[in-house]
Amino acid sequence: VTAYTVCCLPGDGIGPEIMAASRAVLDAVAERFGFTVDCEGHLIGGAAIDACGCALPDATLEAARAADSVLLASVGGPRWDTTDPAAPRPEQGLLAIRKALGLYCNLRPVHVFDALVDASSLKPELVRGVDMLIVRELTGGLYFGARERIDDAPGAGANGEPGVWCSDALEYGEGEIERVVRYAFEAAAGRPRATVCSVDKANVLGTSKLWRDVAHRVAAEYPQVAFSDMLVDNCAMQLVARPAQFDVVVTENTFGDILSDEASMVAGSLGMLASASLGDGTPLFEPSHGSAPDIAGKDVANPLAQILSVALMLRHGLGQPAAADAVEAAVERALDDGWRTADIADDATPADRVLGCAAMGERV
Amino acid sequence: VTAYTVCCLPGDGIGPEIMAASRAVLDAVAERFGFTVDCEGHLIGGAAIDACGCALPDATLEAARAADSVLLASVGGPRWDTTDPAAPRPEQGLLAIRKALGLYCNLRPVHVFDALVDASSLKPELVRGVDMLIVRELTGGLYFGARERIDDAPGAGANGEPGVWCSDALEYGEGEIERVVRYAFEAAAGRPRATVCSVDKANVLGTSKLWRDVAHRVAAEYPQVAFSDMLVDNCAMQLVARPAQFDVVVTENTFGDILSDEASMVAGSLGMLASASLGDGTPLFEPSHGSAPDIAGKDVANPLAQILSVALMLRHGLGQPAAADAVEAAVERALDDGWRTADIADDATPADRVLGCAAMGERV
Ligand SMILES: CC(C)[C@H](C(=O)O)[C@@H](O)C(=O)O
Ligand SMILES: CC(C)[C@H](C(=O)O)[C@@H](O)C(=O)O
Repeated sequence: VTAYTVCCLPGDGIGPEIMAASRAVLDAVAERFGFTVDCEGHLIGGAAIDACGCALPDATLEAARAADSVLLASVGGPRWDTTDPAAPRPEQGLLAIRKALGLYCNLRPVHVFDALVDASSLKPELVRGVDMLIVRELTGGLYFGARERIDDAPGAGANGEPGVWCSDALEYGEGEIERVVRYAFEAAAGRPRATVCSVDKANVLGTSKLWRDVAHRVAAEYPQVAFSDMLVDNCAMQLVARPAQFDVVVTENTFGDILSDEASMVAGSLGMLASASLGDGTPLFEPSHGSAPDIAGKDVANPLAQILSVALMLRHGLGQPAAADAVEAAVERALDDGWRTADIADDATPADRVLGCAAMGERV
Repeated sequence: VTAYTVCCLPGDGIGPEIMAASRAVLDAVAERFGFTVDCEGHLIGGAAIDACGCALPDATLEAARAADSVLLASVGGPRWDTTDPAAPRPEQGLLAIRKALGLYCNLRPVHVFDALVDASSLKPELVRGVDMLIVRELTGGLYFGARERIDDAPGAGANGEPGVWCSDALEYGEGEIERVVRYAFEAAAGRPRATVCSVDKANVLGTSKLWRDVAHRVAAEYPQVAFSDMLVDNCAMQLVARPAQFDVVVTENTFGDILSDEASMVAGSLGMLASASLGDGTPLFEPSHGSAPDIAGKDVANPLAQILSVALMLRHGLGQPAAADAVEAAVERALDDGWRTADIADDATPADRVLGCAAMGERV
């Protein structure tokens, strides 16, 4: 039988609970489809800072490199929050593993399940049928450009006194833009609407003008894919106004961070959104949501984004598309049958249909 | 009688129409409240590029400096769209006048008129009563940092070939952050909920860590104002999930651009949102929307954001708060009476209540 190794990184907050729920689903689907998965747990984020003083220990990175896929839950929490620029932060583990594995292409599908149409803040007629894919550049842009900090810069303080001055650079080479835009076109070419919208701020930023030039050049190679540009402020508006207009959206790292979280609200809850990070090294799969420290350890977290990340892993990481379909169908079925976690329940949900984290995992 | 001079910049697209509609309102309110306004028209944006090759002619800037307020409509359009980094762009006129006048503080009130609760994409129960003020830093951050472009950078092309490499820097000195955050606290102190939310990306960006430090320091001076931080991705989500939670939001230039356009959809239409830009020099007032070239010249544009910008000008620029209240009340009244422009009309609006741009101005 085919045997896979998955590097599991539960991380912080609700991470361990949702990881456990999704591993149960993974074990079940592996058995049914006749393959085996060896899940190795490793440290990342705050848990790693506590254990060894850094957010991404070497042992974790080595294990990730050696595995077929990385399955990550979530990192961070108020315990490690600080604005001290020298202190290690859980999020650095996430940024570092993305960078070290060369995972420049982050896929964030926003799919509205019919059963959850009413869970959205938006009017049901606007969200029904929404099925978009946000492709976020993940190892460049504002997140990874040069940082500068000068503690006594002339004129940087109040009233022209000396003060702290800081800079973060948004940087791109055309190759970095091209590879992720190309991925977006490849993905779009296989989708029914075959449409790409490239999002930038080309009326202000030099990097966005370059982004737009490259996007147009790549677009010319895909005559079968419909293409348009959109300014990021307009896109933030259109996602609320008419989310169904979007098929594949491709954009810079920070813009993608903001827009994908916004888009998640169209789907009713961030608790429903999975993501895949692909590129040069071992692919990584994680939910789009954070570690929700306020509800950690209470068995009320929604494990569905994590379970849907397992589906993305089966499809894009392990080459088991039928198993991926089965997991997604099982999630859809659980929702259609009325099962909910607290975050996606509403007044109309009978109390006995509201499940905890582990129970939702079992139900799926 | 008190006499004011207003530098009027109609700009491009629908700019001239909405400017005309709002000047009619300004004249009417001036007569009623017993002051005079001398409106001088000047060029900016694409119109200025066509006439004199640059987006902000010296004559315009001088007139702006000499006036009591600047009233701007909108700039830009596909005619001047290009990714050529050397070509002049209409938007440069806007950025240049903000910078030249030292207008670091951009106020974008998001007020949901009761009559328009159903025009929003969001469920009515989520938007009713929303009344937030977005304070956007306007002369720093990613818009005004150092720009770099290298045409033959080693490794910047595809497959490690040489290629174009670009960088835009997000830069802040603590004084720049402090003055705009302080404005937000002053504004909040005079509002019923007296609450400030400072939005950043302090888990990734150095400038955001500095922003957060400064915000906390200023917050300590305003014990009567409730204060919290929020990450920008979370804010993009919360604006859709529960917009009513926000009172005053203060943030970086680009984040403010994105979040305020997103928030405008809560209010039903960007056609409803006015903005005030304040700082060292002559204050400037403009709608938050763009020049809508597709509907320019058709007399269907919504002039209400421009008219509400006149109200902000009366309040923050000319020191005529009673006249400002009167204009806002007149807008509310026109909406309550069922009058709509096309963008805010819905299936329930009788055809004879849908007005053109000029007619809506007269109605107000
Ligand atoms: C935790 C944070 C650094 C991260 C990001 O901004 O990339 C998260 O928000 C995400 O979107 O995966
Ligand atoms: C036209 C553009 C440069 C401008 C900006 O981004 O500041 C506009 O979007 C705005 O928000 O006023």
